[in-house]
Amino acid sequence: MLLKKRKSKEDTALFRLEENEGEIVLWSENREVSRQLSMIDLQEEDLLVLQKLRPLVKENIEKIVAQFYKNLEKESSLTKIINDNSSIDRLSQTLTIHIEEMFTGVIDQAFFDKRSKIAQVHLHIGLQPKWYMCAFQDLLLSLISLFDETIENREDYNKAIKATTKILNIEQQLVLDAYQKQHDEIR
Amino acid sequence: MLLKKRKSKEDTALFRLEENEGEIVLWSENREVSRQLSMIDLQEEDLLVLQKLRPLVKENIEKIVAQFYKNLEKESSLTKIINDNSSIDRLSQTLTIHIEEMFTGVIDQAFFDKRSKIAQVHLHIGLQPKWYMCAFQDLLLSLISLFDETIENREDYNKAIKATTKILNIEQQLVLDAYQKQHDEIR
Ligand code: HEM
Ligand code: HEM
Repeated sequence: MLLKKRKSKEDTALFRLEENEGEIVLWSENREVSRQLSMIDLQEEDLLVLQKLRPLVKENIEKIVAQFYKNLEKESSLTKIINDNSSIDRLSQTLTIHIEEMFTGVIDQAFFDKRSKIAQVHLHIGLQPKWYMCAFQDLLLSLISLFDETIENREDYNKAIKATTKILNIEQQLVLDAYQKQHDEIR
Repeated sequence: MLLKKRKSKEDTALFRLEENEGEIVLWSENREVSRQLSMIDLQEEDLLVLQKLRPLVKENIEKIVAQFYKNLEKESSLTKIINDNSSIDRLSQTLTIHIEEMFTGVIDQAFFDKRSKIAQVHLHIGLQPKWYMCAFQDLLLSLISLFDETIENREDYNKAIKATTKILNIEQQLVLDAYQKQHDEIR
């Protein structure tokens, strides 16, 4: 475990990432995507931060996913989409894996391919972008609360927030862009 | 001025908002929009927080808008759109007013009408949603940095971050939703 509750203010080693575990990959063959990454200032350091956060997110994933569903229940059309196309159980599993994957510190071709597939699936089930964006905000709020409870050091907390907003932003960009393109094709 | 640099940890009155200045309005006649607001947990308290942050944002608006443009220069197609349809000066003015308005603490019919108009203008000039979303992430990062530098108290800082991510999220939802609808109509 890398994150400890009630860490003292002085103990700021958390994101001084010399001894990182996994490989960091920040790669795109698409020049436009590279510029998108540059414009949101998503750098290797952010991927290292996300990787460091991963154990914490994994430990709390059940709570995050439970909140995700509780939130969707506010909009009955979403519950209907889920029941017609999947099940709470199946989607929970999908989501558990996917949210953890946001914190692997790897952005490569498989990452882009997966977002294109997500757009395709969501378009197919008729999920409107606005509800998709609502779900992202809910996810962000859950993650902010988790970091707030567990990361005492202000600088680390700040880095965690910034890196997380960046990875959620690029995901939405990629999915909504693919969604729009695929939507235009089939009209 | 409501925010002071280097506030002591104990001095937490910032967002204990009994003595607020302006009127808070959180109103939508559209039931679907009300559910969007509910799903992102945007409450009156967030609007109060935004209103309290307004003087700080106003004081630093030049820096934020300058960074906004510096960022757009990474993508030459955006500079071209601006030069063809407006000017840096004019858009700076537009943006200065608009960003300040995000912190008025008012969500009413005029708020919704304005977002519909923004979608229309951006569609007309050919601004792709992905670049629009990049610009929002940049704006969010500027605001986070500003709050980090000026709001010492962790709870206040956290409230500022949450309220800000919520208002930026609903804005993107409204604009991108209207954008999509208008785009579909003219195809
Ligand atoms: C934070 C927002 C969301 C994320 C990250 C997300 C992620 C995913 C992922 C990774 C998949 C699997 C795609 C594949 O097969 O490769 C998926 C499928 C699906 N999503 Fe979402 N989703 C989100 C929001 C929603 C919402 C709001 C709904 C509400 C209707 C929804 C309903 C579904 C359904 C029904 C499937 C397909 C069935 C299945 O895998 O069981 N998703 N989503
Ligand atoms: C955070 C993201 C953005 C916000 C909040 C924003 C906001 C606005 C607003 C409020 C208007 C005025 C709409 C009206 O007439 O009622 C506008 C217009 C315009 N925007 Fe954006 N915008 C954003 C991103 C961009 C980007 C990335 C570009 C790059 C091309 C851009 C280019 C323009 C242009 C050319 C106009 C019209 C001309 C003008 O008012 O001078 N905007 N925008």
